[in-house]
Amino acid sequence: MKILEDRILRDGQVLGHDVLKVDNFLNHQVDPMLMEEIGKEFHRLFKNEKITKVLTVESSGIAPAIFTGLAFGVPVVFARKHKSVTLKDELYTSVVYSYTKKTSNHIAISKRFLNEDDRVLVVDDFLANGQAVKGLIDIIDQANASLAGIGIVIEKTFQKGRQLIDKEGIHVESLARIKAFEDGKVVFVNDEEAEDAAK
Amino acid sequence: MKILEDRILRDGQVLGHDVLKVDNFLNHQVDPMLMEEIGKEFHRLFKNEKITKVLTVESSGIAPAIFTGLAFGVPVVFARKHKSVTLKDELYTSVVYSYTKKTSNHIAISKRFLNEDDRVLVVDDFLANGQAVKGLIDIIDQANASLAGIGIVIEKTFQKGRQLIDKEGIHVESLARIKAFEDGKVVFVNDEEAEDAAK
Repeated sequence: MKILEDRILRDGQVLGHDVLKVDNFLNHQVDPMLMEEIGKEFHRLFKNEKITKVLTVESSGIAPAIFTGLAFGVPVVFARKHKSVTLKDELYTSVVYSYTKKTSNHIAISKRFLNEDDRVLVVDDFLANGQAVKGLIDIIDQANASLAGIGIVIEKTFQKGRQLIDKEGIHVESLARIKAFEDGKVVFVNDEEAEDAAK
Repeated sequence: MKILEDRILRDGQVLGHDVLKVDNFLNHQVDPMLMEEIGKEFHRLFKNEKITKVLTVESSGIAPAIFTGLAFGVPVVFARKHKSVTLKDELYTSVVYSYTKKTSNHIAISKRFLNEDDRVLVVDDFLANGQAVKGLIDIIDQANASLAGIGIVIEKTFQKGRQLIDKEGIHVESLARIKAFEDGKVVFVNDEEAEDAAK
């Protein structure tokens, strides 16, 4: 997605060799006009998947997910993060390990908001090691709902999340795919490479 | 706001004598179409206030705030909650006490995203005891920014938050104002009462 890549090049900050800071338009300060375009793009990419619900994790996933829900005209559910979980009878829960923070969080959603009739589109801001997505897929399985696809705003292809998902044969779309940070600069997977990979 | 009041009557759950659960359209499962209308309504109510930024707190404030930002065409910043705060040089921080959870959280925003030129609209899902709003006002003061107004989705007028804000002469708009829960039912402040109060 050209406007997203341009925005990453303009406003993203590369920290070390594997961190991209985009807190001025995506996950602290948020650009709602860009989020609206992201929602429309996910709709274009998944419009044949009969989506009934969009699922994400608080907090950074909410903005892109909510505009995706708007574009599809369906509800959005955000899983909540907890240090520990009580009231397990009412909740689907999973555990998400954060490589960045080196801690585990429980994520949970109320059983009332996901069921076997749902075709779920998972939306998240980043795909790196795939732990958040893995936790959400676990919850979708517990609810006997169907995973219809995964929409990622920014993917880091050099970390292992994408591999983990591709193994499962899931329909994944990432709006910006970063293959490396070189000398503090972002290098995107270009279209040719993407086509080669799809062959 | 009629569609919001109707939705509260239809889908809200009253718990005890002071809690309204709206987790099926506002703060866990979210209705993006309703959020879009809420954003437009805040724009209508504050359109003369020369808003440059919308400020809220994660996570439940994000959905209504992001559509308000869209309606104004301005960025949205969400304060992050932390148990403790490090890196204080880079952050404006405040402490928010939760009467429901009986715990204190720090809230923080990066100094890069708020400055003396900003005219800030604070948006939040609930106004009850006013502690979150108080923390956000504290942060706006620290940044020498101007507080242009406060937009609340659901206000409980029988708790002390509104009084606390009114004392300061701030422009506040609440889209649904609840004066009591009677026999498990929501009772709104009706328009006559609102006009009387304004006299």
